[in-house]
Amino acid sequence: MSIDLWRRYRQHLCKCPSLGISVDISRMNFGDDFFKSMTEPMANSFNAMKELEGGAIANPDEGRMVGHYWLRAPELAPTAEISSQITVAKNDVINFAKKIHAKEITPPTAAKFTDVLLIGIGGSALGPQLVADAMKDAGGAGGKRRDKMRLHFFDNTDPDGIDREIQSIGSRLKSTLVVVISKSGGTKETRNGMLEATAVFERASLDISKQAVAVTGEGSELFQHAKDNDWIDTFPMWDWVGGRTSVLSAVGLLPAALQGIDVEQLLAGAAEMDRITRETKIKKNPAALLALMWHYATNGCGEKDMVVLPYKDRLLLMSRYLQQLIMESIGKKHDLDGEEVFQGIAVYGNKGSTDQHAFVQQLRDGVVNFFATFIVVLQDRPRSKDDLEVEANVTSGDYLNGFWQGTREALHGQDRESITITMDRLNAKTFGALIALYERAVGLYATLVNINAYHQPGVQAGKEAADEVLGLQGKVIAHMDGQTDTASPEDIAEAIGEADRVESVFHVLEHLNANKRVVVRSGRKYRKR
Amino acid sequence: MSIDLWRRYRQHLCKCPSLGISVDISRMNFGDDFFKSMTEPMANSFNAMKELEGGAIANPDEGRMVGHYWLRAPELAPTAEISSQITVAKNDVINFAKKIHAKEITPPTAAKFTDVLLIGIGGSALGPQLVADAMKDAGGAGGKRRDKMRLHFFDNTDPDGIDREIQSIGSRLKSTLVVVISKSGGTKETRNGMLEATAVFERASLDISKQAVAVTGEGSELFQHAKDNDWIDTFPMWDWVGGRTSVLSAVGLLPAALQGIDVEQLLAGAAEMDRITRETKIKKNPAALLALMWHYATNGCGEKDMVVLPYKDRLLLMSRYLQQLIMESIGKKHDLDGEEVFQGIAVYGNKGSTDQHAFVQQLRDGVVNFFATFIVVLQDRPRSKDDLEVEANVTSGDYLNGFWQGTREALHGQDRESITITMDRLNAKTFGALIALYERAVGLYATLVNINAYHQPGVQAGKEAADEVLGLQGKVIAHMDGQTDTASPEDIAEAIGEADRVESVFHVLEHLNANKRVVVRSGRKYRKR
Repeated sequence: MSIDLWRRYRQHLCKCPSLGISVDISRMNFGDDFFKSMTEPMANSFNAMKELEGGAIANPDEGRMVGHYWLRAPELAPTAEISSQITVAKNDVINFAKKIHAKEITPPTAAKFTDVLLIGIGGSALGPQLVADAMKDAGGAGGKRRDKMRLHFFDNTDPDGIDREIQSIGSRLKSTLVVVISKSGGTKETRNGMLEATAVFERASLDISKQAVAVTGEGSELFQHAKDNDWIDTFPMWDWVGGRTSVLSAVGLLPAALQGIDVEQLLAGAAEMDRITRETKIKKNPAALLALMWHYATNGCGEKDMVVLPYKDRLLLMSRYLQQLIMESIGKKHDLDGEEVFQGIAVYGNKGSTDQHAFVQQLRDGVVNFFATFIVVLQDRPRSKDDLEVEANVTSGDYLNGFWQGTREALHGQDRESITITMDRLNAKTFGALIALYERAVGLYATLVNINAYHQPGVQAGKEAADEVLGLQGKVIAHMDGQTDTASPEDIAEAIGEADRVESVFHVLEHLNANKRVVVRSGRKYRKR
Repeated sequence: MSIDLWRRYRQHLCKCPSLGISVDISRMNFGDDFFKSMTEPMANSFNAMKELEGGAIANPDEGRMVGHYWLRAPELAPTAEISSQITVAKNDVINFAKKIHAKEITPPTAAKFTDVLLIGIGGSALGPQLVADAMKDAGGAGGKRRDKMRLHFFDNTDPDGIDREIQSIGSRLKSTLVVVISKSGGTKETRNGMLEATAVFERASLDISKQAVAVTGEGSELFQHAKDNDWIDTFPMWDWVGGRTSVLSAVGLLPAALQGIDVEQLLAGAAEMDRITRETKIKKNPAALLALMWHYATNGCGEKDMVVLPYKDRLLLMSRYLQQLIMESIGKKHDLDGEEVFQGIAVYGNKGSTDQHAFVQQLRDGVVNFFATFIVVLQDRPRSKDDLEVEANVTSGDYLNGFWQGTREALHGQDRESITITMDRLNAKTFGALIALYERAVGLYATLVNINAYHQPGVQAGKEAADEVLGLQGKVIAHMDGQTDTASPEDIAEAIGEADRVESVFHVLEHLNANKRVVVRSGRKYRKR
């Protein structure tokens, strides 16, 4: 049995020697004829990807090209203008970070910038957060272990969450560089975060304009705001880069460079993985193998969840990043022919071995509605001489590796399937490659299931519904302003001509009341404050 | 239509006025006869819970009582001895924290303890992490906004992760109180973390014994280690408290008290929710409603995932906490009659509105394999006078609330179901209540599906398989020590009498090689270093 597994392991292992990364699919129980049956669909995926990389309108609903692969290989961009934009932006980012580090750009009331406050949400926050955490104090080009700057994030429109971040910045506000990131330049959470930050700076008698840069599309609301207020600088975003694949554009490169991460290596790793995953021999293409395994495991329609378990603390946010990348790309109602398909793959996980003490109980014994992906990093510590033996000839890292092997075996023993991605070491280059591996796998999978991976039509509905709530709130406030008597939510809804939205009126009133604004509740009735 | 929803909302809303918490199940599409059909099963659940709280052996596989409810109502414990143990432990925790804060207990080489390094995993880390984050700088009994101490965590056996935490502690190591938590006292990850910390202290010429306390079962390996090394103190854990429900024992109370959180309020909130959820009228019992909705949504067999979306940054870890609580409790192979049932409910989520820019696309448009739970906190900021208007009469918090309403509507519009838990405000008391609400819901649900929620038999298999890997590694190292020639994994496996475990031998060799220990790889062969 185990000898057969060893044979299966060697037979299906896909190695990328130039990156020290391999993908093992031997513990997925696909049959002997699976690859043959998928040869033609996969050829189709390779073609679609080739067209995409060539500048086709691969996002037809929005009429856009999809160019995140060009970010690490500008020479492949479909026009010389785009190639040049990419190179210029990258150099601008690197040079800007150098000037910040060299104190050539300084804040008005401190000797140097020490901290970064990144304001963004979704693709404009999660990628940077992942990079920041994965590479924290891991050393940049110079091999220095300590980060050059400390990063903080506003990634929501929660006032209390904003206050907490400001409190953690504390007296370093005067030496904090604010980086506002919004592709469209109109994202409300980000706009709110910027206004909150501006007010905080004002209260501290600081001028945020002298400490701020923007990453946004040229001409956007945010772009105009930055220009009008004479911010330090702006960096571009383009409509051919989606938010969830923007981590290797200025969105991710700027905070990374400021932190002191070698962004050239991030890009080089991604470029190398791109080269590898353009291979059309399936068994030599790790992205194709991932896409095919997702298809096999979920029956091409999301029947199973993808549980992602990196055995490496630095990759804790990887599953959350992949949750965004995969679910927002694949979770679609319609296929490219307009048929209703309700596609998707649910993704979750944190890290091993920690999760073994959390939900691996269910994975092994419970409902069989998932397949696992382990991400293993062989190098335990950057300097092996720091290694401590916790028992004779055994290190903490041996336990970590042993727990991965043990969990893989325990799942396999109960017919639970798993993929393992092994990395010799985690650094900027291999990390960039890991990102690129998943970007390509998502693109290939999208073609296998015939959907547009590059738009997010479902997000709009929530935003519009939220706008309606805020509009309703405006009416409620305006109405109450003219009233002195208490009134029920029904009365108020009726009075403002929104009788059929009484539940929403009620939620608005409750929220206003809880924040001591405008209304006071007395029993089930409300009046002006 | 919306008027009907408003009626349904009012009809099914379950309010806990003493806590300012309500549970809304109106957007779950159960039929009119659902509650009637579940009356008898639910009565059975209430009975089982009553017996459990009375001291029955509610964890039959391990022959244990299940007593986490007694932690906040010691007078209900089945014996005077247990009542007394709980009260003594709680007072010990509070007094110890007071002495630390008052500098009555101090480290040898610093004026006071400033930081806490918590070493634990699973239930001994995630609960404390959740509490620490949810209550961070939120003020304790004295209403002071800043935490009294700063918390750090070793929650894994990742050497690199350990190094990062130590680096973040930096020069404050000499004023760091180490809290080692392990119920059994033998958890390897925790033991490794303790040994790594000990080595770090030694390198800094510090004696960890003078700066350490343990939370563990009396007589455990860790207990003995603490006694033998004359640690500052030990705090008890009991076999009738499970790891995933230990947050209101010394496991969670000690770090919380050290941080400056009012632990009496945490306990009072939980006790109040316990009182409320002992109610046997289903519609007045929010825990019963949650359990019933889980049953309705998943068809009592995990058919759908539970997506948890708190619209509050402080509750980011709530979904991860619930993932552990629910999946480890419910994810079981056998029911109480020994039948194979493969139970479970997969749980995931991060926070709103952030996740709206990540995976809500799939929730709205994609595969219909989930139900959502929103957790809404009405109070935006502790001090409403800090509120900033981002538009006329509109705050960042209005957007947060609007996005929750918008997403709930957008999901409902596509027949995606959701529960909403609303809290007037988040503080130690309501947070304790929220924990207790879910603990009770899990207990009630477990009886509905006839499983033991209080053991975790599947975890053992992974640990044993890991032990086997470490045993194998020992054989590999011993063997290589006597060899000078290179050999293949097959040869080595053969030589140590483990021919059928060649794949594991290979993984061990690769890991040793990557860390420059013992072996060197040359092509597909390995030799002694």
